[in-house]
Amino acid sequence: MRTLLIVSHPEIIDSYSQQYFLNGIKDFENVTVHHLENVYPAGNIDIKKEQELLREHDRIIFQFPFYWYSSPPLLKHWQDVVLEEGVTHGPHGGILAGKEFGLVLMIGVSEKEYQAGGSEQFTISELTRPFQAMANKTGMKYLRPFQIFQFPYTEDDQKMDILIPYWQKLTMENNDSLATREKWLVDQLEYAIKHSDHSNEENILEHAKTIMEENQSTIDDLKIVLDQMYHR
Amino acid sequence: MRTLLIVSHPEIIDSYSQQYFLNGIKDFENVTVHHLENVYPAGNIDIKKEQELLREHDRIIFQFPFYWYSSPPLLKHWQDVVLEEGVTHGPHGGILAGKEFGLVLMIGVSEKEYQAGGSEQFTISELTRPFQAMANKTGMKYLRPFQIFQFPYTEDDQKMDILIPYWQKLTMENNDSLATREKWLVDQLEYAIKHSDHSNEENILEHAKTIMEENQSTIDDLKIVLDQMYHR
Repeated sequence: MRTLLIVSHPEIIDSYSQQYFLNGIKDFENVTVHHLENVYPAGNIDIKKEQELLREHDRIIFQFPFYWYSSPPLLKHWQDVVLEEGVTHGPHGGILAGKEFGLVLMIGVSEKEYQAGGSEQFTISELTRPFQAMANKTGMKYLRPFQIFQFPYTEDDQKMDILIPYWQKLTMENNDSLATREKWLVDQLEYAIKHSDHSNEENILEHAKTIMEENQSTIDDLKIVLDQMYHR
Repeated sequence: MRTLLIVSHPEIIDSYSQQYFLNGIKDFENVTVHHLENVYPAGNIDIKKEQELLREHDRIIFQFPFYWYSSPPLLKHWQDVVLEEGVTHGPHGGILAGKEFGLVLMIGVSEKEYQAGGSEQFTISELTRPFQAMANKTGMKYLRPFQIFQFPYTEDDQKMDILIPYWQKLTMENNDSLATREKWLVDQLEYAIKHSDHSNEENILEHAKTIMEENQSTIDDLKIVLDQMYHR
């Protein structure tokens, strides 16, 4: 599976969150990072090239800071010019049909405010309907959004905990069963061994430990069930 | 009441709908038409000037074509730079607090598709939550959106019927009681007489007839009720 990560951020150099997450994936060979403001500083989007990129990937992710409950202007411009009826989508299908679509949102307000009675009044699901509607219209399967709340205020060890699910959102099959997570982990370990890349090792090992513990707990649960059946 | 009509359309000259509606209001003295792409062709928004415009008006309207369930890029850029915490809004209020906010949407798909099971799957209310959330955050009262579906395909006599409620959305007190509508009509007539402006006369007269008929029907209803009470 190949993932196209379309990043939109008008001042990405100054964004600690964006730098943190993009740094963590720079060695991922199945993820194409495509920062729009960097590729098109004057805003003149190469429509054919973008449609070709969409064609070459299986999962499309929009990653952006969630200002005023929507994307930066350049990503909206990208939608307006690249998503072309008869090419990307349409009554007879298009190049996006059957692909997966997801959002990675960097959010400046705390999670609890995104509900009725909170300062933002609406949930992230409600506020991102325009993107869900776009996935619907273009025939893409809409994935659960990946939401990162107030990242700069997060403690360092908690930051690490957000990286693994971020990597999974980009590269793991859309199925969070234990089997899928295990397979993903084995792939990561094999990749890490092959490339002797030590940068992410600590996270991967920590995560491996968690998966093994979960495995152990699943086995324990099964044992209890078997035990009860046997003594019934 | 003064209304600031912020219009965003990347190719307004080619837009029949935009031209039609903007032509109809060019003599309205309490409406400031502010077309962003025209004022800022290079996208460099004068933040102070925009905040001053907001300060001077009581009702703020965003008028734009509803592409990909959101606004054109320049209007999003306007939101990102003009809406400034501590100036336009904030925990201690701001210049927008207490004003009214509304949307005028030109929509290319027919109304019946905007519901569960329709091609767009969601209602306009659901898809415009980001704007409702903006009104909430900035302390503005959110008005019912004014939605114009497939205007170029509308019959000529039906187009006329859309103009009056459009003018009302821009200039009438937010209250559609018969009394409010009558007062609005009297204001329009007085204005038309004062300025000897014949361009909108036909519509206004047609509308006057409707209001008088409604009035007559209200009086008839009241008579029936009185009659029944009297003979009980």
